[in-house]
Amino acid sequence: MQINPERFLADLHTLRSFGAAGVGKGVVRPAYSDADVAARQWLAQRMRDAGLQVQVDAMGNLFGLADGRSLLMGSHSDSQPEGGWLDGALGVISALEVARAAAEAGGPAVSVVSFQDEEGRFGVTTGSAVWSGHLTLAQADVLTDHTGIALGDARQSVAVMVTGDVSPDQFTGFVELHIEQGPTLDESGEQIGVVTDIVGIRDMKITFDGQQNHAGTTPMHLRRDAFQAVSAFNAALNNRLRNVVTPQTVWTIGHVSLHPNASSIVPGRAVFSMQWRDADTDRLARMEQIIRDTASEIGSDQGMTLSFGPMLGLEPVAMNERLRTALEAGASVIAPENWRTMPSGALHDATNVSRLMSVAMLFVPSIGGVSHTFEEDTAEGDLVAGVRVLAHAVNHLESMP
Amino acid sequence: MQINPERFLADLHTLRSFGAAGVGKGVVRPAYSDADVAARQWLAQRMRDAGLQVQVDAMGNLFGLADGRSLLMGSHSDSQPEGGWLDGALGVISALEVARAAAEAGGPAVSVVSFQDEEGRFGVTTGSAVWSGHLTLAQADVLTDHTGIALGDARQSVAVMVTGDVSPDQFTGFVELHIEQGPTLDESGEQIGVVTDIVGIRDMKITFDGQQNHAGTTPMHLRRDAFQAVSAFNAALNNRLRNVVTPQTVWTIGHVSLHPNASSIVPGRAVFSMQWRDADTDRLARMEQIIRDTASEIGSDQGMTLSFGPMLGLEPVAMNERLRTALEAGASVIAPENWRTMPSGALHDATNVSRLMSVAMLFVPSIGGVSHTFEEDTAEGDLVAGVRVLAHAVNHLESMP
Repeated sequence: MQINPERFLADLHTLRSFGAAGVGKGVVRPAYSDADVAARQWLAQRMRDAGLQVQVDAMGNLFGLADGRSLLMGSHSDSQPEGGWLDGALGVISALEVARAAAEAGGPAVSVVSFQDEEGRFGVTTGSAVWSGHLTLAQADVLTDHTGIALGDARQSVAVMVTGDVSPDQFTGFVELHIEQGPTLDESGEQIGVVTDIVGIRDMKITFDGQQNHAGTTPMHLRRDAFQAVSAFNAALNNRLRNVVTPQTVWTIGHVSLHPNASSIVPGRAVFSMQWRDADTDRLARMEQIIRDTASEIGSDQGMTLSFGPMLGLEPVAMNERLRTALEAGASVIAPENWRTMPSGALHDATNVSRLMSVAMLFVPSIGGVSHTFEEDTAEGDLVAGVRVLAHAVNHLESMP
Repeated sequence: MQINPERFLADLHTLRSFGAAGVGKGVVRPAYSDADVAARQWLAQRMRDAGLQVQVDAMGNLFGLADGRSLLMGSHSDSQPEGGWLDGALGVISALEVARAAAEAGGPAVSVVSFQDEEGRFGVTTGSAVWSGHLTLAQADVLTDHTGIALGDARQSVAVMVTGDVSPDQFTGFVELHIEQGPTLDESGEQIGVVTDIVGIRDMKITFDGQQNHAGTTPMHLRRDAFQAVSAFNAALNNRLRNVVTPQTVWTIGHVSLHPNASSIVPGRAVFSMQWRDADTDRLARMEQIIRDTASEIGSDQGMTLSFGPMLGLEPVAMNERLRTALEAGASVIAPENWRTMPSGALHDATNVSRLMSVAMLFVPSIGGVSHTFEEDTAEGDLVAGVRVLAHAVNHLESMP
């Protein structure tokens, strides 16, 4: 098949015009907004133009279906409240271009999807979560955004497009091209990343309760200062994790809330988030044990009452071997000696879709490693290289046993 | 002179009835509230009953004046939003009892004051700040409380009581009895603390600006995590200060604000408070240098842009030698081998009054070291011991050269 880079880039820029922020290439196209619905209507027409049959489920997940059994490709076209032009959009438009080129070449059959609310206005990857059965529509409908609007009300904006449920049985697998959203490829100068795993996540609130006191009258040796406990926990944890982690493992204290949070008062309480990610379930569990043990020891040393909140857990997802091999074959042709395998540190729709079928993912570089901001960008040569790898992989799959 | 413990305690409990919280002995009597004004009217009547001439300045500072030149004693009768029954009230009622007993004994002349807004509904020790000339009435009038009410409007609630300015020239010095509000006396089992200095305070906001990033896609070695910088700064500072401080020195990070403060985002910015207190101006300056140097080194190590906010500075105040000697003489008689000298880690009205005249302070224990809470309390035997020390000191001053 023959990819058309001009047509692909033109469509990508047209999609950017829906909700264009007017700041760089940024977009404001949250799920179910006017801009999102208009973009989906335009996408549906482009799918029809490509000979695909348009179907939309109750969530607003938009499918362009090839005849018979097909490989599904795509991502999402909703954006962050202040988002970039490529996050999700690249995966949708590249899938459209590959489906179009494949149809022009007489095969293989490729279908396209744009999932809804990947960016989590109402939850986490809500559209693909419902399609994959991880969340029921009834559960999703009662989720609210930060202004209190329920998803069940918000999705009325796409009601006119809805055709009904879309069966996953017609698909042979799912492939998602996405910007990396991190600095690894940009730093190394490589053009393509073939994803090995989407990492698992553990996320837990930890609370130290000490003793709120006057910051003038309470001698240092009598204090039970909750901030000091957090700081000591952090330092001890950084030391202890070094023996367990790989260079791909990450851990973060991104949220800290002190009480009463005043300069003249020794903090009596600290609530903070502890999040860690790795592609290996066993390592995630070893890290959890170290986190719990360290918090317990520091809490005990510093006279704190310690409590752990409920733990959010998302399991790592390994990419399908056959699909990944096809992507690696494409990368070797399009970007010889200039690609790598790597885990995805971010969640994607592919995490949900993996409940239904084999999945694989491909990355292109993010300039400066930034995403979820108007500044997000990727060199157009890298974008086109990504589409070409997808096309090669689709052809390669045909030749595989 | 002859102190009357029953009369003293009865008055202290009556004052507690104005704004009684209904929780333990707690009171809710913020400056200019109905409870505060009613308490000042009752206090004014008790002053008249004791033969004192009542004068009230525009701020609502309430004086009960003895004839001729006199020693001024007192504290404040406003409370924290959720305050204890003794913070301020003890100093006012003990002064009233000593003035009353002195008048009954035919001398020496003792006047009484209850300052307004020591607890800082509108600022910091606002009433005595205006009386001492540290703040003009015009400056004070535009201060607002956290609901937006201006002091200039709030003080209309005491307008009916105002008689005019009260000259400081008539006073030979100022003595303030206060609860310790810390754990030192309660821990040691001592009954009396004679204050040597009110410590100086330095308070400064520090900001680390790093790089906000995705907590999944940003490898640890490429992060510029502002929380990690705060934690490393705190650990390094604790180590470095140990060579400089005394057991009375305190330092506190009581306020920390991360941005954007979300569990999935590497914090790009941290703003935090750094406060330190000591009775020695030179030591405060040495600590400042260590704080600035440490923040600079850690910031540089961790790729942070560092900025310091303006520094709030309140100088240490040494207690007057003559007044302090008189209090020590009283302590030796009333609590032999059971008192100590100590700095005051908290600010008091005496800090402001020291701009006008010699000052000294006396402490009695706080049970559990707690204050600014409904649980604040002191054994009645300790309260009475405090008043007796004051009475002895007043007599002792008469005999001093």
